[in-house]
Amino acid sequence: MKMIKNSLGREIPQETDGRTNIPFMGVGKYIPTGRKAGAPIPSEANYSNKVLANLDQALDKLNLFNGMTISFHHHLRDGDFLVNLVMAKLDQRGYKDIILAPSALFPVHEPLVELIKKGTVSYVLGSMNGPIGKLCTLGGMKKTAILRSHGGRYRAIQDGDLKIDVAFIAAPTADHHGNANGLYGPSACGPLGFALADSLYADQVVVVTDNLVPFPTHPWSIQGGNVDYIVPIDRLGIPEKIVSGTTKITLEPERLKIARMAAQLVIESGLLNEPEFSFQAGAGGISLAFIQYLAESMREKKVIADFVRGGSNKILVDMLKEGLTQFILDGQSFDLAGVESLRDNWNHLETNPFVSYNYHSKRCFASRVKVAVLGATEIDLDFNANVNTHSDGWLLHGIGGFQDSAAAYITILTAPLYRKKFPIVVKRVHTVTAPGEVIDVLITDFGVAINPRREDLLARLKKSTLPVKTIEQLYEEAKNHTGELPAVRTKDHVVALIEWRDGTVIDCIRELDLA
Amino acid sequence: MKMIKNSLGREIPQETDGRTNIPFMGVGKYIPTGRKAGAPIPSEANYSNKVLANLDQALDKLNLFNGMTISFHHHLRDGDFLVNLVMAKLDQRGYKDIILAPSALFPVHEPLVELIKKGTVSYVLGSMNGPIGKLCTLGGMKKTAILRSHGGRYRAIQDGDLKIDVAFIAAPTADHHGNANGLYGPSACGPLGFALADSLYADQVVVVTDNLVPFPTHPWSIQGGNVDYIVPIDRLGIPEKIVSGTTKITLEPERLKIARMAAQLVIESGLLNEPEFSFQAGAGGISLAFIQYLAESMREKKVIADFVRGGSNKILVDMLKEGLTQFILDGQSFDLAGVESLRDNWNHLETNPFVSYNYHSKRCFASRVKVAVLGATEIDLDFNANVNTHSDGWLLHGIGGFQDSAAAYITILTAPLYRKKFPIVVKRVHTVTAPGEVIDVLITDFGVAINPRREDLLARLKKSTLPVKTIEQLYEEAKNHTGELPAVRTKDHVVALIEWRDGTVIDCIRELDLA
Repeated sequence: MKMIKNSLGREIPQETDGRTNIPFMGVGKYIPTGRKAGAPIPSEANYSNKVLANLDQALDKLNLFNGMTISFHHHLRDGDFLVNLVMAKLDQRGYKDIILAPSALFPVHEPLVELIKKGTVSYVLGSMNGPIGKLCTLGGMKKTAILRSHGGRYRAIQDGDLKIDVAFIAAPTADHHGNANGLYGPSACGPLGFALADSLYADQVVVVTDNLVPFPTHPWSIQGGNVDYIVPIDRLGIPEKIVSGTTKITLEPERLKIARMAAQLVIESGLLNEPEFSFQAGAGGISLAFIQYLAESMREKKVIADFVRGGSNKILVDMLKEGLTQFILDGQSFDLAGVESLRDNWNHLETNPFVSYNYHSKRCFASRVKVAVLGATEIDLDFNANVNTHSDGWLLHGIGGFQDSAAAYITILTAPLYRKKFPIVVKRVHTVTAPGEVIDVLITDFGVAINPRREDLLARLKKSTLPVKTIEQLYEEAKNHTGELPAVRTKDHVVALIEWRDGTVIDCIRELDLA
Repeated sequence: MKMIKNSLGREIPQETDGRTNIPFMGVGKYIPTGRKAGAPIPSEANYSNKVLANLDQALDKLNLFNGMTISFHHHLRDGDFLVNLVMAKLDQRGYKDIILAPSALFPVHEPLVELIKKGTVSYVLGSMNGPIGKLCTLGGMKKTAILRSHGGRYRAIQDGDLKIDVAFIAAPTADHHGNANGLYGPSACGPLGFALADSLYADQVVVVTDNLVPFPTHPWSIQGGNVDYIVPIDRLGIPEKIVSGTTKITLEPERLKIARMAAQLVIESGLLNEPEFSFQAGAGGISLAFIQYLAESMREKKVIADFVRGGSNKILVDMLKEGLTQFILDGQSFDLAGVESLRDNWNHLETNPFVSYNYHSKRCFASRVKVAVLGATEIDLDFNANVNTHSDGWLLHGIGGFQDSAAAYITILTAPLYRKKFPIVVKRVHTVTAPGEVIDVLITDFGVAINPRREDLLARLKKSTLPVKTIEQLYEEAKNHTGELPAVRTKDHVVALIEWRDGTVIDCIRELDLA
């Protein structure tokens, strides 16, 4: 396998599985050519009643074949039944070498391990949280996996890099026309945007629902005009695992301290006093605490955000109701309050990876956001961030929206300085998910490091009372607590590529050598 | 020019301007192959602040060239300023042979006549109401015009038959991201769907607005991710001509009689007692009266429509508010009540030609409609309908949604039996806009003709008290009043093609011979 170096000095394979990889060149340096992909031109002559009796009928009618690429979305998260259901049926029917292109997989999808081992599935093009990631790290797939961000996945489908033969779309609500959304029904999940690209570009599109309703349901997050078949089934998943009932803010003092410092940094940056304030923060404990601290300041200073980005949750919804933000722009709902608000509040808007995250568009929402607060597993002396692998080399997480939301004016990583024996600040991240040039601040319980590239930000924070240190200082401090990180032993075999959001390859993951 | 016959026996040119024409084969007979078109793949690297100072700055930045195809939408109708403004500037800059692809042109666009004559514009691919149509009928264009329905235009752009180099989109509201809608601002027009295909598929997209607002405006009928530039201008048009303040029901007894018979036919068909009742009717005087008569019956019989299709207007909005329909599915607002309702009522939904009318989709809304009440200039003994030319051969109207909405379960044409010296029922329509197989009923002030192909409908109406006659009887009666229609004298020169909604050519229009 011939390796080439990208602009970060990372070695990546020149070619994988017949595909020529474009090395990462730096943010905004690779300019694509060519035109977007197009789905096959259908004719209404071939469509009248599209509602089928069951999934088997759909599988009978679809054009299925060995080596086909099929896709799913992950809005049902760890509560999803559909992936396992469809894959078991395809396995029964004897299909081989299926390329699985979900937006993400979760622990619930562990049965896939068996299907990969026996050859029903050849490999995965999508996020792998948990067991499938472990299998991949051990070289258990026939071909090289490709990890993409939410925006990167949309881009890849739009640009024709990822051609989907059949998309199976779990739809909490669908009507007899095939219009679908995630707002109603027992499996309501909120937005349905992760499935949008699949519905627009796949050769065949099947909507599977446990809540079939009369035409028209609205919103049509998925448009019936793109849907071949509508399949009613009993249950799409386990509601409690699709959206958790509650949202939990951290109670740990160290983590609260990190959240408080993140809020302080935003306030001291002066952004609250400038027009068009907005922010995005995840659903983790630190992020939620950050939002609460920031909301307190906004209330005090009478600041109203132009918008906040979701992952929506009760805390953001409360801000909306209180009038602290004009809009929630929501890509996925993390709790029931998020789902209900999306359904009931006109200014809680559903978004999708095209409008929010697609770098190969004429601008997306991500770069309009002023502050993004994100987490990571590692950050290195160049501020490169890793969210995919742990320091011991295991691939356990997808990229999610990490690369995309890092387009914010200030991107802040929050993390404890070390987790058990693992430092968060390392000399060189095991895997680069995002280049240091998009990571502006690291906030740990032992101090704050600001990327020296961001002279504008340093100027804004000249009078800050935050414990600002260099990233090198934090690195040394972490090392003092954990000792030197043992080297990860890997084989030459590249098991996965990490694509930057523009389709170039920013890093690759090698098979772990456990011998 | 080699002519071939299509399945209706109409002669059409085998080729026009290097394009091979596919003859109409009957509804649903032509099945397309190939894949949808794709716009150029952009990169956010090339987009940051997209708001320009003025239109000239946009013209400086755009890639413009002789022979380019540029497009506009017609939601501002006869109140539109933008087409004339842009075309005058392109003329000043000396561009030649521009192919103009608006969704429709109106009398206000008469200045284009001069630009066509001097060669700035070579020809028009779009609906021509009024003066431009007259010019076309006299052979005043360099190439052969192509007329398409609303759905057919979307299809042509989607399928790659109509490639647009620059789309200029008049936006009553746009934000700094390029998201745009027609709901707010001095030029509010309601939906903005006629511009959707242009925004998705054109090489370059310019949003021009007289109401630039902060990000985000919603709905994003046009998505900023598809927009290159945003240009603020003082005024997009004349509000009173964009949406009329009032909606006028006919007062003429003959026309009221026609409307009453149309309502009676719908009631006697039994559709009101069956599930999923819905209808579509235009904004003309007879149509509006029809809606009122039908609403009375629905009120009496406690019937609630699943949906009604707009062109929205006050009468439909009143039905929505009264609870006589669950939804309005709206493609364009004909009065202020329509615009306000689209803005304020959650169950008044904006549609676009993709979801409503695109035959090259996996089904669109049009074929879900139970009853469509439409007008026409002529209908012949085969029930072929003409909405484009008058009986004297002048091309004066676009197809609009006529072909598309004729996909309803019952398509009813309403018209007086004759207008002045012109009979409506003729032996052979001058131009076929829609084939007789999709026209089910003709209702005139002298009687009702039902298409004998529709045996199911005849069975439904067996006990009807309507004055049912044969189309031949109505033809004879009309002739008795007007005398034989003088033959239209035309030259061989084909000036325009009429495309059926699937892209095949159903008829052509020849240059008038006035000598």
